[in-house]
Amino acid sequence: MSVNQPRRGRRAGSPSTRELILASARTLFAEKGFEGTSLREIARDAGVDPAMVHHYFTGKEDLFSSCVELPANPDQVLAAVSAVVPADRGPALLRTLLVLWDSPAQPALLAMLRSAVGSKAQAALLREVLFRRVLARAMAGLGTDADDVRLRGSLLASQIMGLMMARYLVRLEPLASASHDEIVAVMGPTIQHYLTGSLRDGFAGGS
Amino acid sequence: MSVNQPRRGRRAGSPSTRELILASARTLFAEKGFEGTSLREIARDAGVDPAMVHHYFTGKEDLFSSCVELPANPDQVLAAVSAVVPADRGPALLRTLLVLWDSPAQPALLAMLRSAVGSKAQAALLREVLFRRVLARAMAGLGTDADDVRLRGSLLASQIMGLMMARYLVRLEPLASASHDEIVAVMGPTIQHYLTGSLRDGFAGGS
Repeated sequence: MSVNQPRRGRRAGSPSTRELILASARTLFAEKGFEGTSLREIARDAGVDPAMVHHYFTGKEDLFSSCVELPANPDQVLAAVSAVVPADRGPALLRTLLVLWDSPAQPALLAMLRSAVGSKAQAALLREVLFRRVLARAMAGLGTDADDVRLRGSLLASQIMGLMMARYLVRLEPLASASHDEIVAVMGPTIQHYLTGSLRDGFAGGS
Repeated sequence: MSVNQPRRGRRAGSPSTRELILASARTLFAEKGFEGTSLREIARDAGVDPAMVHHYFTGKEDLFSSCVELPANPDQVLAAVSAVVPADRGPALLRTLLVLWDSPAQPALLAMLRSAVGSKAQAALLREVLFRRVLARAMAGLGTDADDVRLRGSLLASQIMGLMMARYLVRLEPLASASHDEIVAVMGPTIQHYLTGSLRDGFAGGS
Protein backbone atom coordinates (compact mmCIF):
# COMPACT_ATOMS: atom_id res chain seq x y z
CA MET A 1 0.00 0.00 0.00
CA SER A 2 1.48 3.34 -1.05
CA VAL A 3 2.30 5.88 1.62
CA ASN A 4 1.33 8.52 -0.93
CA GLN A 5 -2.36 7.71 -0.71
CA PRO A 6 -3.50 9.23 2.56
CA ARG A 7 -7.10 8.81 3.77
CA ARG A 8 -8.06 6.39 1.04
CA GLY A 9 -9.82 3.18 2.02
CA ARG A 10 -9.91 1.90 5.56
CA ARG A 11 -6.62 1.09 7.23
CA ALA A 12 -6.24 -2.40 8.64
CA GLY A 13 -6.29 -2.25 12.41
CA SER A 14 -8.45 0.85 12.70
CA PRO A 15 -11.17 0.53 15.35
CA SER A 16 -13.79 0.36 12.61
CA THR A 17 -12.58 -2.98 11.28
CA ARG A 18 -13.46 -4.59 14.60
CA GLU A 19 -16.87 -2.91 14.50
CA LEU A 20 -17.48 -4.11 10.95
CA ILE A 21 -16.73 -7.67 12.01
CA LEU A 22 -19.00 -7.39 15.06
CA ALA A 23 -21.86 -5.98 13.01
CA SER A 24 -21.68 -8.84 10.51
CA ALA A 25 -21.32 -11.39 13.28
CA ARG A 26 -24.39 -10.09 15.08
CA THR A 27 -26.46 -10.32 11.92
CA LEU A 28 -25.26 -13.79 10.96
CA PHE A 29 -25.45 -15.29 14.46
CA ALA A 30 -28.99 -13.96 14.78
CA GLU A 31 -30.01 -15.28 11.35
CA LYS A 32 -28.27 -18.63 11.34
CA GLY A 33 -27.35 -19.37 14.94
CA PHE A 34 -23.93 -19.94 16.42
CA GLU A 35 -23.40 -23.38 14.89
CA GLY A 36 -24.58 -22.34 11.45
CA THR A 37 -22.19 -19.41 11.14
CA SER A 38 -18.49 -19.65 10.21
CA LEU A 39 -15.76 -17.09 10.84
CA ARG A 40 -15.06 -17.14 7.10
CA GLU A 41 -18.64 -16.09 6.33
CA ILE A 42 -18.48 -13.33 8.88
CA ALA A 43 -15.25 -12.02 7.34
CA ARG A 44 -16.78 -12.14 3.87
CA ASP A 45 -19.94 -10.35 5.01
CA ALA A 46 -17.81 -7.69 6.73
CA GLY A 47 -15.60 -7.32 3.65
CA VAL A 48 -12.41 -8.06 5.57
CA ASP A 49 -9.72 -10.69 5.30
CA PRO A 50 -10.39 -13.73 7.55
CA ALA A 51 -7.02 -13.06 9.16
CA MET A 52 -8.47 -9.83 10.54
CA VAL A 53 -11.12 -11.78 12.43
CA HIS A 54 -8.36 -13.83 14.06
CA HIS A 55 -6.43 -10.65 14.75
CA TYR A 56 -9.26 -9.23 16.86
CA PHE A 57 -10.85 -12.36 18.32
CA THR A 58 -9.34 -15.56 19.65
CA GLY A 59 -12.07 -17.62 18.03
CA LYS A 60 -15.79 -17.96 17.35
CA GLU A 61 -16.69 -18.18 21.05
CA ASP A 62 -14.79 -14.99 21.79
CA LEU A 63 -16.38 -13.21 18.83
CA PHE A 64 -19.82 -14.37 19.94
CA SER A 65 -19.27 -13.09 23.50
CA SER A 66 -18.12 -9.74 22.14
CA CYS A 67 -21.17 -9.61 19.88
CA VAL A 68 -23.64 -9.89 22.66
CA GLU A 69 -21.46 -7.67 24.82
CA LEU A 70 -21.54 -10.04 27.71
CA PRO A 71 -20.02 -8.18 30.63
CA ALA A 72 -18.76 -11.40 32.13
CA ASN A 73 -17.73 -14.62 30.49
CA PRO A 74 -20.58 -17.00 31.33
CA ASP A 75 -18.29 -19.97 30.90
CA GLN A 76 -16.10 -18.73 33.71
CA VAL A 77 -19.02 -17.69 35.88
CA LEU A 78 -20.82 -20.99 35.38
CA ALA A 79 -17.80 -23.29 35.39
CA ALA A 80 -18.25 -24.02 39.07
CA VAL A 81 -21.89 -24.92 38.51
CA SER A 82 -21.17 -27.87 36.22
CA ALA A 83 -18.85 -29.26 38.90
CA VAL A 84 -21.72 -29.48 41.41
CA VAL A 85 -23.38 -32.90 41.54
CA PRO A 86 -26.68 -32.91 39.62
CA ALA A 87 -28.77 -33.43 42.76
CA ASP A 88 -27.60 -30.10 44.22
CA ARG A 89 -27.06 -28.14 41.05
CA GLY A 90 -30.35 -26.19 40.93
CA PRO A 91 -29.71 -24.00 43.97
CA ALA A 92 -26.04 -23.58 42.96
CA LEU A 93 -27.03 -22.38 39.49
CA LEU A 94 -29.61 -19.97 40.88
CA ARG A 95 -27.15 -18.51 43.39
CA THR A 96 -24.48 -18.06 40.72
CA LEU A 97 -26.95 -16.23 38.47
CA LEU A 98 -28.11 -13.97 41.32
CA VAL A 99 -24.50 -13.02 42.11
CA LEU A 100 -23.93 -12.24 38.43
CA TRP A 101 -27.14 -10.21 38.11
CA ASP A 102 -26.37 -8.20 41.24
CA SER A 103 -22.81 -7.47 40.05
CA PRO A 104 -21.71 -4.46 37.97
CA ALA A 105 -22.72 -6.57 34.96
CA GLN A 106 -26.39 -5.94 35.77
CA PRO A 107 -27.10 -3.04 33.37
CA ALA A 108 -25.65 -4.92 30.39
CA LEU A 109 -27.57 -8.09 31.26
CA LEU A 110 -30.84 -6.21 31.64
CA ALA A 111 -30.18 -4.41 28.37
CA MET A 112 -29.83 -7.78 26.70
CA LEU A 113 -33.15 -8.97 28.17
CA ARG A 114 -34.87 -5.72 27.15
CA SER A 115 -33.60 -5.83 23.60
CA ALA A 116 -34.55 -9.50 23.23
CA VAL A 117 -38.12 -8.55 24.09
CA GLY A 118 -38.20 -5.84 21.44
CA SER A 119 -36.32 -7.37 18.52
CA LYS A 120 -36.44 -10.75 16.81
CA ALA A 121 -32.73 -10.64 15.97
CA GLN A 122 -31.84 -9.85 19.59
CA ALA A 123 -34.18 -12.60 20.76
CA ALA A 124 -32.28 -15.02 18.51
CA LEU A 125 -28.99 -13.93 20.06
CA LEU A 126 -30.39 -14.38 23.56
CA ARG A 127 -31.56 -17.87 22.60
CA GLU A 128 -28.02 -18.71 21.54
CA VAL A 129 -26.57 -17.33 24.78
CA LEU A 130 -29.07 -19.21 26.91
CA PHE A 131 -28.70 -22.54 25.19
CA ARG A 132 -25.02 -22.48 24.38
CA ARG A 133 -23.76 -20.85 27.52
CA VAL A 134 -26.04 -20.99 30.51
CA LEU A 135 -27.92 -24.20 29.81
CA ALA A 136 -24.97 -26.14 28.43
CA ARG A 137 -23.16 -25.56 31.70
CA ALA A 138 -26.20 -26.11 33.88
CA MET A 139 -26.98 -29.43 32.25
CA ALA A 140 -23.47 -30.77 31.73
CA GLY A 141 -23.24 -34.46 32.53
CA LEU A 142 -26.93 -34.92 33.27
CA GLY A 143 -26.99 -37.81 30.84
CA THR A 144 -30.45 -37.16 29.45
CA ASP A 145 -31.34 -37.37 25.77
CA ALA A 146 -31.31 -34.34 23.47
CA ASP A 147 -35.10 -33.78 23.51
CA ASP A 148 -35.14 -34.00 27.27
CA VAL A 149 -32.25 -31.52 27.54
CA ARG A 150 -34.10 -29.04 25.31
CA LEU A 151 -37.33 -29.36 27.27
CA ARG A 152 -35.60 -28.99 30.63
CA GLY A 153 -33.49 -26.16 29.25
CA SER A 154 -36.45 -24.18 28.02
CA LEU A 155 -38.33 -24.66 31.30
CA LEU A 156 -35.24 -23.56 33.20
CA ALA A 157 -34.78 -20.56 30.94
CA SER A 158 -38.42 -19.56 31.36
CA GLN A 159 -38.05 -19.45 35.14
CA ILE A 160 -34.67 -17.70 34.95
CA MET A 161 -35.91 -15.00 32.56
CA GLY A 162 -39.10 -14.62 34.58
CA LEU A 163 -37.10 -14.10 37.77
CA MET A 164 -34.90 -11.46 36.11
CA MET A 165 -37.98 -9.73 34.85
CA ALA A 166 -39.88 -9.92 38.14
CA ARG A 167 -36.92 -8.86 40.28
CA TYR A 168 -35.28 -6.17 38.18
CA LEU A 169 -37.71 -4.88 35.57
CA VAL A 170 -41.27 -5.24 36.87
CA ARG A 171 -39.93 -5.11 40.43
CA LEU A 172 -42.45 -7.40 42.06
CA GLU A 173 -42.10 -7.52 45.83
CA PRO A 174 -40.92 -9.39 47.79
CA LEU A 175 -38.76 -10.86 44.96
CA ALA A 176 -37.34 -7.46 44.04
CA SER A 177 -35.82 -6.89 47.50
CA ALA A 178 -35.26 -10.46 48.65
CA SER A 179 -31.76 -11.66 49.54
CA HIS A 180 -30.05 -14.36 47.51
CA ASP A 181 -30.61 -16.82 50.35
CA GLU A 182 -34.33 -16.13 50.41
CA ILE A 183 -34.71 -16.55 46.66
CA VAL A 184 -32.63 -19.72 46.61
CA ALA A 185 -34.80 -21.11 49.41
CA VAL A 186 -38.10 -20.57 47.59
CA MET A 187 -37.08 -20.97 43.94
CA GLY A 188 -34.11 -23.34 44.16
CA PRO A 189 -36.42 -26.37 44.28
CA THR A 190 -38.10 -25.30 41.02
CA ILE A 191 -34.76 -24.97 39.24
CA GLN A 192 -33.69 -28.34 40.63
CA HIS A 193 -36.98 -29.89 39.54
CA TYR A 194 -36.53 -28.65 35.98
CA LEU A 195 -32.96 -29.98 35.95
CA THR A 196 -33.46 -33.43 37.40
CA GLY A 197 -37.07 -33.95 38.54
CA SER A 198 -39.57 -36.25 36.90
CA LEU A 199 -41.24 -33.86 34.47
CA ARG A 200 -43.88 -36.08 32.98
CA ASP A 201 -45.20 -37.20 36.32
CA GLY A 202 -45.15 -33.81 37.99
CA PHE A 203 -43.02 -33.18 41.03
CA ALA A 204 -42.00 -36.34 42.83
CA GLY A 205 -44.09 -36.76 45.93
CA GLY A 206 -46.64 -34.21 44.68
CA SER A 207 -46.44 -30.55 45.56
CA MET B 1 -74.12 26.17 25.24
CA SER B 2 -74.90 28.40 22.32
CA VAL B 3 -75.44 26.83 18.93
CA ASN B 4 -73.82 29.91 17.47
CA GLN B 5 -70.35 29.01 18.69
CA PRO B 6 -69.19 26.26 16.39
CA ARG B 7 -65.85 24.55 16.97
CA ARG B 8 -65.03 26.49 20.11
CA GLY B 9 -63.84 24.59 23.19
CA ARG B 10 -64.29 20.88 23.62
CA ARG B 11 -67.80 19.56 23.66
CA ALA B 12 -68.72 17.27 26.53
CA GLY B 13 -69.03 13.77 25.23
CA SER B 14 -66.52 14.16 22.43
CA PRO B 15 -64.14 11.20 22.09
CA SER B 16 -61.30 13.35 23.43
CA THR B 17 -62.78 13.67 26.89
CA ARG B 18 -62.53 9.92 27.31
CA GLU B 19 -58.93 10.03 26.10
CA LEU B 20 -58.07 12.81 28.56
CA ILE B 21 -59.45 10.75 31.42
CA LEU B 22 -57.54 7.66 30.28
CA ALA B 23 -54.27 9.58 29.98
CA SER B 24 -54.58 10.96 33.51
CA ALA B 25 -55.64 7.59 34.86
CA ARG B 26 -52.64 5.85 33.30
CA THR B 27 -50.26 8.38 34.84
CA LEU B 28 -51.83 8.29 38.29
CA PHE B 29 -52.29 4.50 38.45
CA ALA B 30 -48.64 4.08 37.45
CA GLU B 31 -47.42 6.62 40.01
CA LYS B 32 -49.65 5.80 42.94
CA GLY B 33 -51.07 2.35 42.25
CA PHE B 34 -54.70 1.35 41.95
CA GLU B 35 -55.55 1.68 45.63
CA GLY B 36 -53.81 5.03 46.00
CA THR B 37 -55.69 6.70 43.16
CA SER B 38 -59.25 8.07 43.35
CA LEU B 39 -61.64 8.81 40.51
CA ARG B 40 -61.88 12.37 41.82
CA GLU B 41 -58.13 12.87 41.46
CA ILE B 42 -58.19 11.46 37.96
CA ALA B 43 -60.99 13.84 37.00
CA ARG B 44 -59.09 16.79 38.49
CA ASP B 45 -55.88 15.83 36.71
CA ALA B 46 -57.76 15.47 33.43
CA GLY B 47 -59.52 18.80 33.98
CA VAL B 48 -62.99 17.29 33.67
CA ASP B 49 -65.98 17.07 35.95
CA PRO B 50 -66.03 13.85 38.04
CA ALA B 51 -69.44 13.12 36.55
CA MET B 52 -67.70 12.73 33.19
CA VAL B 53 -65.62 9.89 34.58
CA HIS B 54 -68.80 8.12 35.63
CA HIS B 55 -70.32 8.86 32.26
CA TYR B 56 -67.58 6.93 30.45
CA PHE B 57 -66.66 4.27 32.98
CA THR B 58 -68.76 2.17 35.32
CA GLY B 59 -66.16 2.54 38.09
CA LYS B 60 -62.50 2.46 38.99
CA GLU B 61 -62.08 -1.18 37.93
CA ASP B 62 -63.56 -0.48 34.54
CA LEU B 63 -61.40 2.61 34.10
CA PHE B 64 -58.32 0.62 35.09
CA SER B 65 -59.08 -2.13 32.57
CA SER B 66 -59.56 0.45 29.84
CA CYS B 67 -56.27 2.10 30.83
CA VAL B 68 -54.19 -0.95 30.31
CA GLU B 69 -56.23 -1.81 27.23
CA LEU B 70 -56.81 -5.32 28.37
CA PRO B 71 -58.29 -7.13 25.42
CA ALA B 72 -60.22 -9.42 27.71
CA ASN B 73 -61.57 -8.84 31.17
CA PRO B 74 -59.26 -10.92 33.37
CA ASP B 75 -61.95 -11.17 36.01
CA GLN B 76 -64.20 -12.97 33.57
CA VAL B 77 -61.41 -15.10 32.15
CA LEU B 78 -60.13 -16.09 35.58
CA ALA B 79 -63.47 -16.37 37.37
CA ALA B 80 -63.59 -20.11 36.75
CA VAL B 81 -60.10 -20.50 38.19
CA SER B 82 -61.04 -19.28 41.65
CA ALA B 83 -63.83 -21.85 41.70
CA VAL B 84 -61.34 -24.72 41.33
CA VAL B 85 -60.30 -26.30 44.62
CA PRO B 86 -56.85 -25.06 45.69
CA ALA B 87 -55.21 -28.47 45.28
CA ASP B 88 -56.01 -28.49 41.54
CA ARG B 89 -55.85 -24.80 40.82
CA GLY B 90 -52.28 -24.55 39.43
CA PRO B 91 -52.89 -26.50 36.23
CA ALA B 92 -56.31 -24.84 35.81
CA LEU B 93 -54.74 -21.38 36.06
CA LEU B 94 -52.00 -22.25 33.62
CA ARG B 95 -54.44 -23.67 31.08
CA THR B 96 -56.67 -20.61 31.33
CA LEU B 97 -53.71 -18.31 30.74
CA LEU B 98 -52.53 -20.35 27.74
CA VAL B 99 -56.00 -20.17 26.18
CA LEU B 100 -56.01 -16.41 26.73
CA TRP B 101 -52.48 -15.94 25.31
CA ASP B 102 -53.28 -18.03 22.24
CA SER B 103 -56.50 -16.10 21.61
CA PRO B 104 -56.86 -12.97 19.46
CA ALA B 105 -55.87 -11.06 22.61
CA GLN B 106 -52.27 -12.19 22.13
CA PRO B 107 -50.83 -9.09 20.40
CA ALA B 108 -52.21 -6.75 23.07
CA LEU B 109 -50.95 -8.94 25.90
CA LEU B 110 -47.47 -9.18 24.38
CA ALA B 111 -47.46 -5.44 23.82
CA MET B 112 -48.16 -4.99 27.52
CA LEU B 113 -45.27 -7.28 28.45
CA ARG B 114 -42.94 -5.52 26.01
CA SER B 115 -43.81 -2.07 27.25
CA ALA B 116 -43.43 -3.13 30.88
CA VAL B 117 -39.88 -4.18 30.09
CA GLY B 118 -39.06 -0.82 28.57
CA SER B 119 -40.85 1.66 30.82
CA LYS B 120 -41.09 2.07 34.58
CA ALA B 121 -44.59 3.48 34.36
CA GLN B 122 -45.75 0.56 32.23
CA ALA B 123 -44.03 -1.85 34.60
CA ALA B 124 -46.01 -0.29 37.45
CA LEU B 125 -49.26 -0.82 35.52
CA LEU B 126 -48.34 -4.44 34.81
CA ARG B 127 -47.64 -4.94 38.52
CA GLU B 128 -51.12 -3.68 39.30
CA VAL B 129 -52.69 -5.94 36.69
CA LEU B 130 -50.80 -8.98 37.93
CA PHE B 131 -51.50 -8.46 41.60
CA ARG B 132 -55.02 -7.09 41.44
CA ARG B 133 -56.32 -9.23 38.64
CA VAL B 134 -54.48 -12.42 37.92
CA LEU B 135 -53.07 -13.20 41.35
CA ALA B 136 -56.11 -12.10 43.33
CA ARG B 137 -58.16 -14.62 41.39
CA ALA B 138 -55.54 -17.33 41.45
CA MET B 139 -55.13 -17.09 45.20
CA ALA B 140 -58.74 -16.49 46.23
CA GLY B 141 -59.64 -18.45 49.32
CA LEU B 142 -56.21 -19.92 49.90
CA GLY B 143 -56.35 -18.62 53.46
CA THR B 144 -52.69 -17.71 53.76
CA ASP B 145 -51.43 -14.51 55.39
CA ALA B 146 -50.70 -11.35 53.42
CA ASP B 147 -46.90 -11.81 53.29
CA ASP B 148 -47.32 -15.37 52.15
CA VAL B 149 -49.78 -14.30 49.44
CA ARG B 150 -47.33 -11.69 48.16
CA LEU B 151 -44.43 -14.13 48.10
CA ARG B 152 -46.44 -16.84 46.34
CA GLY B 153 -47.89 -14.25 44.00
CA SER B 154 -44.51 -12.91 42.93
CA LEU B 155 -43.13 -16.43 42.40
CA LEU B 156 -46.20 -17.30 40.35
CA ALA B 157 -45.90 -14.10 38.34
CA SER B 158 -42.22 -14.74 37.67
CA GLN B 159 -42.98 -18.15 36.16
CA ILE B 160 -45.97 -16.81 34.23
CA MET B 161 -44.06 -13.87 32.74
CA GLY B 162 -41.10 -16.14 32.01
CA LEU B 163 -43.33 -18.58 30.15
CA MET B 164 -44.88 -15.78 28.07
CA MET B 165 -41.43 -14.54 27.27
CA ALA B 166 -39.97 -17.96 26.47
CA ARG B 167 -42.95 -19.09 24.38
CA TYR B 168 -43.88 -15.96 22.46
CA LEU B 169 -40.97 -13.51 22.49
CA VAL B 170 -37.70 -15.42 22.74
CA ARG B 171 -39.41 -18.46 21.20
CA LEU B 172 -37.49 -21.16 23.00
CA GLU B 173 -38.27 -24.63 21.70
CA PRO B 174 -39.96 -26.87 22.61
CA LEU B 175 -41.99 -24.42 24.75
CA ALA B 176 -42.72 -22.16 21.76
CA SER B 177 -44.50 -24.91 19.81
CA ALA B 178 -45.77 -27.10 22.65
CA SER B 179 -49.49 -27.77 23.04
CA HIS B 180 -51.40 -26.54 26.06
CA ASP B 181 -51.58 -30.11 27.37
CA GLU B 182 -47.82 -30.53 27.14
CA ILE B 183 -47.09 -27.26 28.93
CA VAL B 184 -49.64 -27.96 31.63
CA ALA B 185 -48.06 -31.39 32.16
CA VAL B 186 -44.53 -30.05 32.70
CA MET B 187 -45.18 -26.65 34.26
CA GLY B 188 -48.50 -27.18 36.06
CA PRO B 189 -46.73 -28.71 39.08
CA THR B 190 -44.56 -25.59 39.46
CA ILE B 191 -47.58 -23.30 39.41
CA GLN B 192 -49.34 -25.57 41.90
CA HIS B 193 -46.25 -25.61 44.11
CA TYR B 194 -46.09 -21.81 44.19
CA LEU B 195 -49.81 -21.67 45.02
CA THR B 196 -50.05 -24.27 47.75
CA GLY B 197 -46.71 -26.08 48.23
CA SER B 198 -44.46 -25.76 51.26
CA LEU B 199 -42.14 -22.98 50.09
CA ARG B 200 -39.74 -22.80 52.97
CA ASP B 201 -39.03 -26.50 52.91
CA GLY B 202 -38.73 -26.86 49.18
CA PHE B 203 -41.10 -29.06 47.23
CA ALA B 204 -42.82 -31.65 49.38
CA GLY B 205 -41.21 -35.00 48.85
CA GLY B 206 -38.15 -33.43 47.25
CA SER B 207 -37.79 -32.89 43.55
